[in-house]
Amino acid sequence: MLHLKTPDEVLALIQTEFAPLSDRMEPVPLEDAIGRVLAEDIRATEYVPDFNRSTVDGYAVQAKDTFGCSESIPAILPLDREIRMGEGADFILPEGTCCAVPTGGAIPQGADCAVMLEYTEDYGDGSIGITKAGAPGQNMIFRGDDVHPGKVVLNAGRLLSAQDIGALAAIGCSTVPVARKLTVGIISTGDELVPHQESPGPGQVRDVNSVMLCAMLKAFGLNPVNYGIVLDNAPLLEQTMRQAVSECDAVLISGGSSVGVKDATCRTIESMGTLLLHGIAIKPGKPTIMGNAGGKPLIGLPGHPVAAYFITRLFALPLFGRMMGRTMTQYTISAELTESMGANHGRAQYSCCRLEQRNGRVLANPIRSKSGLITTLADADGYFCIERDCEGLPKGAIIPVTICAGE
Amino acid sequence: MLHLKTPDEVLALIQTEFAPLSDRMEPVPLEDAIGRVLAEDIRATEYVPDFNRSTVDGYAVQAKDTFGCSESIPAILPLDREIRMGEGADFILPEGTCCAVPTGGAIPQGADCAVMLEYTEDYGDGSIGITKAGAPGQNMIFRGDDVHPGKVVLNAGRLLSAQDIGALAAIGCSTVPVARKLTVGIISTGDELVPHQESPGPGQVRDVNSVMLCAMLKAFGLNPVNYGIVLDNAPLLEQTMRQAVSECDAVLISGGSSVGVKDATCRTIESMGTLLLHGIAIKPGKPTIMGNAGGKPLIGLPGHPVAAYFITRLFALPLFGRMMGRTMTQYTISAELTESMGANHGRAQYSCCRLEQRNGRVLANPIRSKSGLITTLADADGYFCIERDCEGLPKGAIIPVTICAGE
Repeated sequence: MLHLKTPDEVLALIQTEFAPLSDRMEPVPLEDAIGRVLAEDIRATEYVPDFNRSTVDGYAVQAKDTFGCSESIPAILPLDREIRMGEGADFILPEGTCCAVPTGGAIPQGADCAVMLEYTEDYGDGSIGITKAGAPGQNMIFRGDDVHPGKVVLNAGRLLSAQDIGALAAIGCSTVPVARKLTVGIISTGDELVPHQESPGPGQVRDVNSVMLCAMLKAFGLNPVNYGIVLDNAPLLEQTMRQAVSECDAVLISGGSSVGVKDATCRTIESMGTLLLHGIAIKPGKPTIMGNAGGKPLIGLPGHPVAAYFITRLFALPLFGRMMGRTMTQYTISAELTESMGANHGRAQYSCCRLEQRNGRVLANPIRSKSGLITTLADADGYFCIERDCEGLPKGAIIPVTICAGE
Repeated sequence: MLHLKTPDEVLALIQTEFAPLSDRMEPVPLEDAIGRVLAEDIRATEYVPDFNRSTVDGYAVQAKDTFGCSESIPAILPLDREIRMGEGADFILPEGTCCAVPTGGAIPQGADCAVMLEYTEDYGDGSIGITKAGAPGQNMIFRGDDVHPGKVVLNAGRLLSAQDIGALAAIGCSTVPVARKLTVGIISTGDELVPHQESPGPGQVRDVNSVMLCAMLKAFGLNPVNYGIVLDNAPLLEQTMRQAVSECDAVLISGGSSVGVKDATCRTIESMGTLLLHGIAIKPGKPTIMGNAGGKPLIGLPGHPVAAYFITRLFALPLFGRMMGRTMTQYTISAELTESMGANHGRAQYSCCRLEQRNGRVLANPIRSKSGLITTLADADGYFCIERDCEGLPKGAIIPVTICAGE
């Protein structure tokens, strides 16, 4: 019998037992890269912009040709030519002249400044009056100001966001090296379970976990494979587990509340690899099992949907993130607890809550319920933890809440 | 010429001008409902659980038959029968007897309590000793404790999360009424643009906006349709806009820095419906246009990717959310600004930042850059606003940051 591990011990175990997959990189078109995990650092291979650009509509000049000018005494410069949008400026601006340039247009060599249209006058005779002196570098972006070859634009491990896609487009990264989506097998066990599409008979309940876990994995960017419901039957469970391990990168088994099936899960894990833990000092979710079958994690989740939810979120997803080389970041928001919460059972206690914004404050309304009620999860906006060495939280306590709505 | 509207005025305008689409409901299988917007309140039509259940392995009894028992004087009850997992309990427990029941198993009529196995002894002669008195209702979930017919389990407008999927599975909602994904046309304009897959020639730059906007819309749960790059040419732009409006629920036009194209966008909007605004008191993003063509929004975004990003995020997505009937919730996290930021130009100023967690504090490092640099966006974790009536923020100020990483 293994002793209960604390949540921190479980997270440390994940780091030491499982490594990022060595074969995880796959190239995808930039159009499909949103929400994928970057598998390599992305370095620019060119200059952005590739030419000196004006940031205003106006005239490119040599700043020194405008020094000392004013509205009453404009600097009068012959117009050398007009540069249009999308045209190159592959010439040298003759000293003492100017050329018209639009916002974003190319600025020729020789020019070191753009003067805004507002501070100019077109005399119509081929010469332009400049009424405000420019300074070198003014209203210009220089070649490579944004990106130069070799610059790391995005780091490996990042979950690609829309703005990252924009940056990759700008540097011409049309094919992106991302971590392939892990394939994760999902098995539900329990003689009482019927598929959620069916009406439960006497003593039966719908299988909630497999469809919920599929959704969680999908939202995390993985490929779930649902192996359906397996009866509380050790040989059948072993057979399904072996099939799932051979076809997937990882396996989640939920339920199996009977002692026989729990033992069968442990025995199968031991026959396939190493049993890493049996029990976490957490509520809900204590009867959790974790094993390693040749680098593939097998996790035995509790049957209660609320417990299965928390164990997946707190341990399985970070583990899958680790295998994909994903940098895991979790931000919390501060909220004010609307009721006191007791907790003195020596386990870290996780509770769901609904958040409410009122007069600039964020209130966390804990969702209380008996063990295993699925409505504990419904409509939850986030969750918070009462640490194992904490006896409870008073009403009004400011607590960090992790958002779990809309994912 | 319309005057600049403040961001709040624009958001109010969106509410008055655009309504949730009346034809937005479409049914999807529960397996595909994650990340979709619920189109109707979901009411339960049955009891969950549908039978009284034990929350422990043990014996179902009438509590009064155990009153006064103890380890030294157990209550001895004949074992009526054993109930297995997944079996109904369609009988009445005879008074003064007990029946064996597993965790989650059905409890028969007549029994009002489950006694944990730990507090019992099987004498092997068909009778069970109970060593600790039970109380009515103890270790039981009653029929309908979780959900009863008519109870609203989830409200319309909610973005469905994995835990919501679990709740829907529990109540047998296998087909979910969700808002259909809006189809949004995307047009990039500018003579200087080349598709991001191509190498820009002299004076050209890659089209960043269309691929970035597609990614933003996809992450928000919409169907983007990319109409590609249209040259700065009024008749061509009008033709493409008319086609996009006829095929889509909304259209985003980005770029068109030339005065001619801006005017063409405005004129086309006016010829197709109403021009609602031309200019927002915001930085970046001031030269924004919005129109309404028969209930379909047309938004002219600035060409700078950073400005296009913010205008889409701050105004276009809430507008699309409104059309889908989505309840928009935005949480912010508190972070400490690592440098002072100036701002005194009378416009709400949005800035990207990188977040860093250090010693339990969250630091916001603002990303400074010249106008239009795409690397302002790359690697950003969030953004914050300096309100228009604020002259700047000191180093160390605690600011609310909206997370934009990983979406």
